[in-house]
Amino acid sequence: MRATLMYGAGDVRIENVPDSRIKNPTDALVRITASCICGSDLHPYHSMDAAAAPARMGHEFIGVVEEVGSDVVTVKKGDLVVSPFAISDNVCEICKENLQTSCLHHEAGFWDGIPDEGGQAEAVRVPLADGTLVKLPVAADSTLVPSLLTLSDVFGTGYHAAVAGGVKAGSSVTVIGDGAVGLLAVLSAKRLGAEQIILMGRHQVRTDLGREFGATDVVSARGEEGIAQVRDLTGGHGTHVVLEAVGYMAAYEQALGVVRRGGVISRVGVPQYEDAPIGFGSLFRHNIRLAGGPAPVRAYIDELMPDILDGKIDPGKVFDATTDLDGTPAGYRDMDQRTALKVLITP
Amino acid sequence: MRATLMYGAGDVRIENVPDSRIKNPTDALVRITASCICGSDLHPYHSMDAAAAPARMGHEFIGVVEEVGSDVVTVKKGDLVVSPFAISDNVCEICKENLQTSCLHHEAGFWDGIPDEGGQAEAVRVPLADGTLVKLPVAADSTLVPSLLTLSDVFGTGYHAAVAGGVKAGSSVTVIGDGAVGLLAVLSAKRLGAEQIILMGRHQVRTDLGREFGATDVVSARGEEGIAQVRDLTGGHGTHVVLEAVGYMAAYEQALGVVRRGGVISRVGVPQYEDAPIGFGSLFRHNIRLAGGPAPVRAYIDELMPDILDGKIDPGKVFDATTDLDGTPAGYRDMDQRTALKVLITP
Repeated sequence: MRATLMYGAGDVRIENVPDSRIKNPTDALVRITASCICGSDLHPYHSMDAAAAPARMGHEFIGVVEEVGSDVVTVKKGDLVVSPFAISDNVCEICKENLQTSCLHHEAGFWDGIPDEGGQAEAVRVPLADGTLVKLPVAADSTLVPSLLTLSDVFGTGYHAAVAGGVKAGSSVTVIGDGAVGLLAVLSAKRLGAEQIILMGRHQVRTDLGREFGATDVVSARGEEGIAQVRDLTGGHGTHVVLEAVGYMAAYEQALGVVRRGGVISRVGVPQYEDAPIGFGSLFRHNIRLAGGPAPVRAYIDELMPDILDGKIDPGKVFDATTDLDGTPAGYRDMDQRTALKVLITP
Repeated sequence: MRATLMYGAGDVRIENVPDSRIKNPTDALVRITASCICGSDLHPYHSMDAAAAPARMGHEFIGVVEEVGSDVVTVKKGDLVVSPFAISDNVCEICKENLQTSCLHHEAGFWDGIPDEGGQAEAVRVPLADGTLVKLPVAADSTLVPSLLTLSDVFGTGYHAAVAGGVKAGSSVTVIGDGAVGLLAVLSAKRLGAEQIILMGRHQVRTDLGREFGATDVVSARGEEGIAQVRDLTGGHGTHVVLEAVGYMAAYEQALGVVRRGGVISRVGVPQYEDAPIGFGSLFRHNIRLAGGPAPVRAYIDELMPDILDGKIDPGKVFDATTDLDGTPAGYRDMDQRTALKVLITP
């Protein structure tokens, strides 16, 4: 079968690899019908450690179950399923607290921790299939597939940002970042009843989609100027919640600048730093809280899917390009150059 | 009148100063009947910047109103009152969200920001008296005074740690620090229904009081060994909530070690650092949240006072020494040398 491999920064290739197959009785084998490239895939695309190469890529996909291990009971051959970006048993003590990204099972973890498997491929072995996969009540060629595919990561991640940030009716919210996660954080804040949603981003095509998703204001300036503009829009106070969907230190500093006294900074962009200011002069003096982390999207699929099936929301609008597997390396390039927001792959 | 002044590290003196008096129509003049020394007073006692000397000390007190400005309506001459450690108008937009320590009024702030006033003295001018002071329904010589005095800071601060940490029925909690705030964080966690309360502290007299306040376990080891012991006590998981009542980096690192996946570190010890680990390897990977800051004790007085008046709780047990004003410098020394937990001053 064919799959996507990364050999180093900027070096993505489609190659023939051994067919994925069932190894454990809790596995499922899934024939992939739709997958995509993630903003987080661009981190290794920029600075991959050669020692880790080649790496199988992709952690967001929808596909048809081709075979299941003998212990699998929740999905069966022929089912269309979506996979979260994290594998979990969904029954351990931590999963029961809806933190499936921190599942205690030894086979749990992120897709990039599963050797020789990945979502940007023709097929994939899914460990802990009962806990991980969720059946979709549509056909593989449904027009809803792009939106349902966002449940595997970006929509659930944006939603997690908003939930972890405590967004509720009447909240004022700043969203930092106009990538797919930032835009879906806007949609999520809107869904949770936020009154003011300020999107900080510089790419008008994207911020226009942000407005469509519910942003009430757009601030294109960054740094001190951007902070001043958000303060102006909020009576000088900043917003109750800041959803940080970037991960760079500059974004964290921006979050500190726009958060209201007593507010929350909720991070879902993977931090590209370890140490950062959290002392008296930053978080502590005004009881600023910090929340977020890898989104337990498994916990949100049941909640979010009905709105997609009913056509109430269309998170799939974040896909502005589609390619087959052979076009995947070009998709990485286009996302890196920001000529594409998010690329859908139909193997 | 006489007051306590700090001239430098280790140098505390009782001196005659100009009498405090009403300056603004929103002021009250209070004759102090009980005050105390705070663990946070030991920070300048260790490393005071000589440029700031001499500094008037004390931010926790009870006293009798001697005179009020023309605008003051909630307290009157003769009332016994308690003052939070932060001055606030209690009506601004931020105070209404119960964050009186971040009050927007230009006269608001901590007591150490008010020139020539302090609680370790015979009298004090209280700005924004209507917002700041709370009337006490007892006499100045009531046996409840020590417990009521803890409402000015240490009990409200311990309670804030627990509230900001989201402690609820069934929570598992680690409290780091066996000072007055740590011990009252134990009492607070107990009051909020925590099931397991692990107190990390090394002074048995103090940890014994912690057990009396509700600690189910005491861990005297620090660092990796202390972390391992807390893990052992929690099935390997750590606790849902960590209340960090120290403020040193070692305490924060200990908190990272004992917090459960998806848990909260709630800090009320004033951080003696600015930058600290919050990236993928510390907070982010397992959605650990960070909360806390200076406690809006004003918000908690109405809630906590009835339990003291009813004799249900006795937070005043943290006072293990009493002195008059002349003995205050010796009180600093005793607290610094840890021969006293917390010193009550009766001017």
